[in-house]
Amino acid sequence: MALIVQKFGGSSVADAEGLARVATRVVATKKAGNDVVVVVSAMGDTTDDLLDLAAAITQKAPEREMDILLTAGERISMSLLAMAIDARGVPARSYTGQQAGVLTDAAYGKAQIVKLAPERIQKSLADGQVAIVAGFQGVNDANDVTTLGRGGSDTTAVALAAALGADVCEIYTDVDGLFTADPRVVPNARRIREITSEETLELAAHGAKILHLRAVEFARRYNVPLHVRSSFSDKDGTWVRNPTEENPMEDPIITGVTHDASQAKITVLGVPDRPGVAARVFQVCADQGSNVDTIVQNVSADSNRADISFTLPMAEAERTLQALRDAEDDLGFTGLKDTAEIGILSVVGAGMRTHSGVSATLFGALSEAGVNIEMISTSEIRISVVVASEDLPTALKVVHSAFDLDASETEAVVYGGTGR
Amino acid sequence: MALIVQKFGGSSVADAEGLARVATRVVATKKAGNDVVVVVSAMGDTTDDLLDLAAAITQKAPEREMDILLTAGERISMSLLAMAIDARGVPARSYTGQQAGVLTDAAYGKAQIVKLAPERIQKSLADGQVAIVAGFQGVNDANDVTTLGRGGSDTTAVALAAALGADVCEIYTDVDGLFTADPRVVPNARRIREITSEETLELAAHGAKILHLRAVEFARRYNVPLHVRSSFSDKDGTWVRNPTEENPMEDPIITGVTHDASQAKITVLGVPDRPGVAARVFQVCADQGSNVDTIVQNVSADSNRADISFTLPMAEAERTLQALRDAEDDLGFTGLKDTAEIGILSVVGAGMRTHSGVSATLFGALSEAGVNIEMISTSEIRISVVVASEDLPTALKVVHSAFDLDASETEAVVYGGTGR
Repeated sequence: MALIVQKFGGSSVADAEGLARVATRVVATKKAGNDVVVVVSAMGDTTDDLLDLAAAITQKAPEREMDILLTAGERISMSLLAMAIDARGVPARSYTGQQAGVLTDAAYGKAQIVKLAPERIQKSLADGQVAIVAGFQGVNDANDVTTLGRGGSDTTAVALAAALGADVCEIYTDVDGLFTADPRVVPNARRIREITSEETLELAAHGAKILHLRAVEFARRYNVPLHVRSSFSDKDGTWVRNPTEENPMEDPIITGVTHDASQAKITVLGVPDRPGVAARVFQVCADQGSNVDTIVQNVSADSNRADISFTLPMAEAERTLQALRDAEDDLGFTGLKDTAEIGILSVVGAGMRTHSGVSATLFGALSEAGVNIEMISTSEIRISVVVASEDLPTALKVVHSAFDLDASETEAVVYGGTGR
Repeated sequence: MALIVQKFGGSSVADAEGLARVATRVVATKKAGNDVVVVVSAMGDTTDDLLDLAAAITQKAPEREMDILLTAGERISMSLLAMAIDARGVPARSYTGQQAGVLTDAAYGKAQIVKLAPERIQKSLADGQVAIVAGFQGVNDANDVTTLGRGGSDTTAVALAAALGADVCEIYTDVDGLFTADPRVVPNARRIREITSEETLELAAHGAKILHLRAVEFARRYNVPLHVRSSFSDKDGTWVRNPTEENPMEDPIITGVTHDASQAKITVLGVPDRPGVAARVFQVCADQGSNVDTIVQNVSADSNRADISFTLPMAEAERTLQALRDAEDDLGFTGLKDTAEIGILSVVGAGMRTHSGVSATLFGALSEAGVNIEMISTSEIRISVVVASEDLPTALKVVHSAFDLDASETEAVVYGGTGR
């Protein structure tokens, strides 16, 4: 008998049909002899609908009130799921974050879990019930309701799995796990059977949308095995876990290729080549709240000046450009170039550490395909390149092939939308 | 400075416009120098929508899960109202039943309040905030969420007013208070300025839909003055309170005339006139869960037999008739008569106790108008008569006039629908 935490996103429980499908799966897991804790997000568009309601009232809602408003969604989905499971002959009880002992700090909208006191969940399991917990929410020490921010339900699930000593935390989504590339762009992408949390973090940070960074970090820290799989099929998905003596994972050179088409590139031309000028450029960006990612600096044609390029989310490009223009006199640059249409491709693999030649293979494949590399940045287990937006699909495919990641037949099935 | 509890029903907060109107009123009350506690129901049709969601899942939802589901509605309306008040420059905090210290028994769906521990509300008021409390909900000693049943938000408001020692509990609705008759039937009905809770109970029990029995009983028991008024106007409404030495209320002979068109009459003909037979008739009804109201027994044409007539809610008539038919052999009656189309008219007034002649005026007015009385029942401060359904509007008008209740001009304005 195992203790299994199952997390279902909003798209899995969007309607009565979805709730029935989830309930059937939970009941099967329970009847197979396991203890089951379910973490559930709000149904479909509920959270957006609640945000719309608030927006119709005020543009500056107090955060405390916004948090209690948004948590109504999980309260609805969790009780309906309990009803659906109960209707299938298995006793079930739903618990709010407060009831489940999810204790957080007071940072409304992005609260951190400070302690888990899941006595009621343990009691429920001991009584033979399926325990259903509202994701995304907790309670601070003033007994006020908080939300955990983006990906909060994943975090709830992993934290509960850690606190309960669960054997696995299953994250249900609308694809069969993590793939070596986005199957919508690279049709012969291969399902990744097993991956380390370190690699998963790099994938998630550079374009893979399936798992949220915080949840993966939590899983790594508390050594919780994650099983990312589809709520629409019974296929095995992707196991995210750290190698152990009993299970020494092989480090493939490259685990996967991700891409991110949501970034823009800004180049500041002819910045005076004096200490502190680059710092001032990025201070202007920081003052705008811009999330600058990759930065490259080259010597300019004029040898006393430098060109600085950086990437940032596309949505932030406009106001950052304007801020730079406003600071032109102070910064003393000679020109600004805005390239919205860029794509970032990243290859990630723990094996990169010990195998040389990865960059040679990567750059060689791109060159052979006639793809120009605009910028390069690296971490210990990742290499990212910025290319022209129109080159991105080709770049993904040739790189995927160059690292022998192509599956012999199409493995990926995309079942629906994505949840929170 | 007074402490005022204001309760708003679902129709008052049905949309952003309604929330804005309520917020404006609350802010005005607060800025006039009062401490304000607001109790709010779920927005418009929210509760019905949640019931529909549950019905799509199962017909036998566990009561615990149903209660936590339904309380999501007040969680939404209370936080939105807090935002709307805050947006008008007055600090506001919303509180769930649990946070407000509404402690109940474990009777899901119809929980009774066993204790109020409103420390957080008192703290909120001391901090100069408007405290908004979710109506209709509480928490049992297992920390599970409960609902208070029909009229639950009124009960929350009155109970909080009692516990906080409020000067008044204002119940906002869509009419300007209680009227001497339903203004939709009797256009020149008069607004009742002041009424005892005892009379209000009789009115509520016999057709007046504005206030719920439990809330009025609570107000009577804890001596909480109620002010029933419209959320659409600033007019004074109806004060429900008990006479005191400083405020000796005059007992009008008749305070109001109510009617109930939702009842049916069943007559069991030729029941053997032996002890215990009537009891067996009503046992059959009780087994069906029928809510029998008025009962009249006459000697039948056959002197060894009796005819028994009784009224009950129209929705229960069909299955009660069938149950009686099934028990025909046991009961030994000679026939059954079903009269769905009846109306019940009640005159209520504390002055009835000390003034004779009320029934003479009542029966005289009906007789003059050619209205036949089918049944009569009385309490200490009420006389009810059953008449043919089509006679009900005429009966109401002539009785209303006969007791000098007619206003010189039309006072009543009906503003919208009715909330929970």
